[in-house]
Amino acid sequence: MKALQFHKSLSLIECPFPSRKQGEVLVQVHLAGICNTDLEILKGYMNFTGIPGHEFVGYIAESDNTALVGKRVTGEINIGCGECIACQNGLDRHCPNRDVLGIQNYNGAFAEFLIIPEKNLFFIPDSISDEEAVFIEPLAAACEILEQIQIQPQFHVAVFGDGKLGLLIAQVLQISGCKLTVIGRHPDKLNFVRRLGVDTLLESQISDQRFDVVVDATGSADGFHQALQCVKPRGIFVLKSTTQESIQFNPAKLVIDEIQLVGSRCGPFRPAIQLLVEKKVDVKPLISGIYPLNAWETAFQVAESRESLKILLSMKL
Amino acid sequence: MKALQFHKSLSLIECPFPSRKQGEVLVQVHLAGICNTDLEILKGYMNFTGIPGHEFVGYIAESDNTALVGKRVTGEINIGCGECIACQNGLDRHCPNRDVLGIQNYNGAFAEFLIIPEKNLFFIPDSISDEEAVFIEPLAAACEILEQIQIQPQFHVAVFGDGKLGLLIAQVLQISGCKLTVIGRHPDKLNFVRRLGVDTLLESQISDQRFDVVVDATGSADGFHQALQCVKPRGIFVLKSTTQESIQFNPAKLVIDEIQLVGSRCGPFRPAIQLLVEKKVDVKPLISGIYPLNAWETAFQVAESRESLKILLSMKL
Repeated sequence: MKALQFHKSLSLIECPFPSRKQGEVLVQVHLAGICNTDLEILKGYMNFTGIPGHEFVGYIAESDNTALVGKRVTGEINIGCGECIACQNGLDRHCPNRDVLGIQNYNGAFAEFLIIPEKNLFFIPDSISDEEAVFIEPLAAACEILEQIQIQPQFHVAVFGDGKLGLLIAQVLQISGCKLTVIGRHPDKLNFVRRLGVDTLLESQISDQRFDVVVDATGSADGFHQALQCVKPRGIFVLKSTTQESIQFNPAKLVIDEIQLVGSRCGPFRPAIQLLVEKKVDVKPLISGIYPLNAWETAFQVAESRESLKILLSMKL
Repeated sequence: MKALQFHKSLSLIECPFPSRKQGEVLVQVHLAGICNTDLEILKGYMNFTGIPGHEFVGYIAESDNTALVGKRVTGEINIGCGECIACQNGLDRHCPNRDVLGIQNYNGAFAEFLIIPEKNLFFIPDSISDEEAVFIEPLAAACEILEQIQIQPQFHVAVFGDGKLGLLIAQVLQISGCKLTVIGRHPDKLNFVRRLGVDTLLESQISDQRFDVVVDATGSADGFHQALQCVKPRGIFVLKSTTQESIQFNPAKLVIDEIQLVGSRCGPFRPAIQLLVEKKVDVKPLISGIYPLNAWETAFQVAESRESLKILLSMKL
């Protein structure tokens, strides 16, 4: 099969079909999304080598349970050991021995086929298209914020970052009924959420605005500093981006203003699927391009550019 | 009167008595404590100039209400404007226009007399000695942690830092009944809390211990990193130290492990006074020396040394 392999650099390779163990299924990947984490992996994040990619939709090709073959699925990317205290408490996402699909010690979705444990599967309702389904994983990450903090309707909330994750988060937070502002650098990307009734601001327009809750989805050190600056005393600062880059900062601001910083990573798939079924979020406008696997070089170039949002790789084209 | 003034460097000066405005009282200071924040101020923290010192006990010398004269007091150090939304919600400590006694725009307690608004006063019950009363402010800062997070008895909690603040925090947290470990560099300081039944560890003995809650009271960048490393996934990291120094760190650890970082500064005086009245904390063993104001140079030298804990300045000696 064809796959993109990262080993110091990314290349398209021809490799044997992966072989599944008991409890695992073989999935024929149809679409896979390129996430900022993938771009960070190409810079050395997590020291990953192998096949990256963790946002996908595909069809089960082989399974212990033959009744599953042909089902359309996506999957939770954290693969817990199943035995530790975290796993036994349902916290597989924080299992200290976990593998993570396409991110840590486990081949991912930028390939014609992938292996994933059956317990990680989520079946996709017919009303969700492939192009929407590939957003379930990042949408779950956006939903995680609502699992972690309670957003009151009277809260002034800011999302920093008008990238693909920022715009998903904005849509999810808007459902909470809070007073939402998205702050970014790209008028055209901000337009997308403005059409949904969300306030927007260009980063250059910020002066003394302060918010009860600020979500940093900028993926940059500059963004971190600017977002933190806008948190009210006793406010909440949700950190969404993982980057390879370190930042230099003085934590005194967090202490003096008694800010609560909440690190937020992967989220629950079920509410994400539900949001898509109920058409409460609109993900298709976030697709900037769909490229065949063969055109991966262009796909990654476009994904790296500031103008684009979500880039998908199609294994069917 | 005599006072210590910081203006690029610290010096003992003779200056006029401060004059009080309506609503303010004149306090004759008896004892004042040297806090790490004071030591940071000498390095440039907060760009403060004037008379530092914010931990004190003294007697009211002048007041609008003459019945108050002679009363023994300490005081909340944050002086809110009284008019903004924060102040109107009882959050004077986070008033954006606040002055802070001996820290921000307002002369403090390293002097024979100080001025403070009457509304900031706390009267000291007879059962609390002067030497104990001077700990009310830092003890309140320790109590703040229990206002911000709920510590369950089954929680494994670590306090990093065996300095004066760390040892106060340890005593306060021990009351919550959690499984407490204090981690530090000084066997003799750790001995103090070990005698109270708290587990202790030398920093060099840490290996793979992980805690539900970690409090960083080290006041150093090294301490921050080491303390953060010991927070369990989904755990709570309470940040207590304010320093002049910036730190270099990659926030990915906070995101990946979904850690909640809680900045924690000043706290409520009433519970602190209550703890002293009920003899639930033991602060006197934390006093490493009491020096007359004239001997301020020695006092600050000793306060800077790693061996000492709390150094007090006495205006009566």
